[in-house]
Amino acid sequence: MTGTRAARRLAELARIGAQPGGGVTRPGLEAREQQACELVASWMAEDGLEVTWDTAGNLFGRRRGADPARREVWSGSHVDTVPNGGRFDGALGVVLALEAAARLAGEHLPATLAVCVFRDEEGFRFGHGCFGSRAVCGRLSEEDLAMADAAGVTVRDALAELGRAGLPGPSGPLPATFVETHVEQGPVLERAGVPLAAVTAIAGMAGCTVRFLGESGHAGTLPMVGRRDAFLAAATFALALRDEALRLGDAVATVGDVRIAGAARNIVPGRVAVTVDVRAPTAESVTLLAEAVPRLARAADVDVEIDGVAFALPVPMAHGVRDALQDAAVAEGVAMLELGSGAGHDAGILAAAGVEAGMLFVRSGNGGVSHRPEELTTDDDVELAAGVLTRALRSLCGGDSLA
Amino acid sequence: MTGTRAARRLAELARIGAQPGGGVTRPGLEAREQQACELVASWMAEDGLEVTWDTAGNLFGRRRGADPARREVWSGSHVDTVPNGGRFDGALGVVLALEAAARLAGEHLPATLAVCVFRDEEGFRFGHGCFGSRAVCGRLSEEDLAMADAAGVTVRDALAELGRAGLPGPSGPLPATFVETHVEQGPVLERAGVPLAAVTAIAGMAGCTVRFLGESGHAGTLPMVGRRDAFLAAATFALALRDEALRLGDAVATVGDVRIAGAARNIVPGRVAVTVDVRAPTAESVTLLAEAVPRLARAADVDVEIDGVAFALPVPMAHGVRDALQDAAVAEGVAMLELGSGAGHDAGILAAAGVEAGMLFVRSGNGGVSHRPEELTTDDDVELAAGVLTRALRSLCGGDSLA
Repeated sequence: MTGTRAARRLAELARIGAQPGGGVTRPGLEAREQQACELVASWMAEDGLEVTWDTAGNLFGRRRGADPARREVWSGSHVDTVPNGGRFDGALGVVLALEAAARLAGEHLPATLAVCVFRDEEGFRFGHGCFGSRAVCGRLSEEDLAMADAAGVTVRDALAELGRAGLPGPSGPLPATFVETHVEQGPVLERAGVPLAAVTAIAGMAGCTVRFLGESGHAGTLPMVGRRDAFLAAATFALALRDEALRLGDAVATVGDVRIAGAARNIVPGRVAVTVDVRAPTAESVTLLAEAVPRLARAADVDVEIDGVAFALPVPMAHGVRDALQDAAVAEGVAMLELGSGAGHDAGILAAAGVEAGMLFVRSGNGGVSHRPEELTTDDDVELAAGVLTRALRSLCGGDSLA
Repeated sequence: MTGTRAARRLAELARIGAQPGGGVTRPGLEAREQQACELVASWMAEDGLEVTWDTAGNLFGRRRGADPARREVWSGSHVDTVPNGGRFDGALGVVLALEAAARLAGEHLPATLAVCVFRDEEGFRFGHGCFGSRAVCGRLSEEDLAMADAAGVTVRDALAELGRAGLPGPSGPLPATFVETHVEQGPVLERAGVPLAAVTAIAGMAGCTVRFLGESGHAGTLPMVGRRDAFLAAATFALALRDEALRLGDAVATVGDVRIAGAARNIVPGRVAVTVDVRAPTAESVTLLAEAVPRLARAADVDVEIDGVAFALPVPMAHGVRDALQDAAVAEGVAMLELGSGAGHDAGILAAAGVEAGMLFVRSGNGGVSHRPEELTTDDDVELAAGVLTRALRSLCGGDSLA
């Protein structure tokens, strides 16, 4: 049974870098990611795909199409993980692309279908993710190669260890289309009771650090009236930012890190730095929320400094892919929502490079927990996703969408 | 001019442990505190006082009274400082007690007046302050001697370095009365435009650590609705606690330290620990505020754990001393308020041991800044305090209060 094959392959991948509590650790450009890639390469060969590696260590398994002039269709994801992460994040998109390619094996499709594995998507090791997808888009520089991990190993060293030298770049033209299947990493599908979603956009994002500069003092001798408590200013800001995000509806805002300078139980906080992360799937929402950050911060009765400002507009997913996924879901009789992706993905890199990219989200169980051993997607949902992805890829490769 | 003498002595003390930016560092039971004590001992001798040291290294300078059966009156404070602290905290109370003793030199008073210097009041070095006053009250234990500083030096080692061995304890009976002059360490007198205050009580205090246990998640993929953000719970709590303290009027509440477990810009905080410090000069207020802490914390929509709970009722200052200070201020024509002390002091230790203790607060300039180089009390205020303290001590020693 094919559904069983995907589940078995996910379980086999999870043994590489397995951690005591059920989690998985496969840092990007490290031996365990390489071992996982080699396992996938063996499955590609087993399934009759044409296996190649590019200069970044990305892995491709092609089934040639009937029309050599037609641009390729790619599907895949990554097999690296965060430390002690889950077994579905990344791996699911690779295993399901393999599954679809296998199911389409007997069919004569116009376009070449390539299953791909992009390296170091998570980026926690060297501090910058989507390494492999940036390589195929020609977006790597010597600066990327000079970045080092906690042990001082640079990207260049790590590539050399894998037998690769020089600046990785494209090994051929970009595909016409890319479809990435991925776990939702959030609770929306579980709450809605729906197994799948077509992603509308990779969320736009704004980030910064806000410093609240009040006045420190002795917790016992400084009366409440007249205090300029920097932590209370930060607390007021964080709650106001939450309310603003709730008002926008489709946005999220997070104060994730809070540092009080010289913090002590008996000292009124004088200087507090907080990180701000806001995201939204539409340009309007992310812009409104990014603009709210300095306005809400400066409403405080202490001085405010803002730095480290980052801003990125949402990356829309291609309508052609969204439609193909929706049509496939209808044909398979599977319920499907439309959803923004709050996290970044390789699909966003390819979309920004002009590829018609799209994503299929699969329901995350356990409340949507992500990047943890408790990450869960059921075998039933994996099977539903395999059916929808296969049908969508057939259509995108120029096959009969009603087949 | 005597005012000049007090200011000159304060300046001379400030040279011991002087720091580049104008601050002073004299850790308790360390060479620089000892050097400051020896300078004070030389002034005691100069002023004709009878100098003794006790087993804790506390310094006394006595002017014998006419009635040997009458219990003693003590006045003084400490000469240790926090790191890079101010030049008035502690030193002012010692210099003004010396000044009063000198001004009362020609008078034949019934009670013996002792100027005293208590060791290691600040307590930052070994983690527990009021070492000297606890010693004279017989409240030290072997446990206190075993406490170590950051370099691993124990209290026992530090005492040995100063030539003292064994458990320090009382070297004689406690006095009938103790008066400690101290800088306010807050902005109340400066804001009121009044130079002096008689302290009503050392504030009662409650402290604890509150842990908010929400649910962590990815900042991009976890929708706002349904989040159980532990930092937002802590922020809500801190603001509600502030409002409660403002409502009580005479109380203060501070969240001074905030720690987010696994804090990162892109992670919704799941576990946050905050320290809570509440103080008030009346038993009713400190009790109400201490009871509000768990109630306000548990109002959060996340789980809450509270530990490290400490509670101390206010220590009232003796009415006899408060009246003597108020009468002296009236006689000197100096405005005086009544004020609670939010910080702990040696006077609180002696009061708890049954001594009729009181405190004279002197206005802190520069917004009441304390424990910093910018700490300031003007020469004029020092002079006003000297006049009031001298008159109050005369009366407390059995002299003519109208003299």
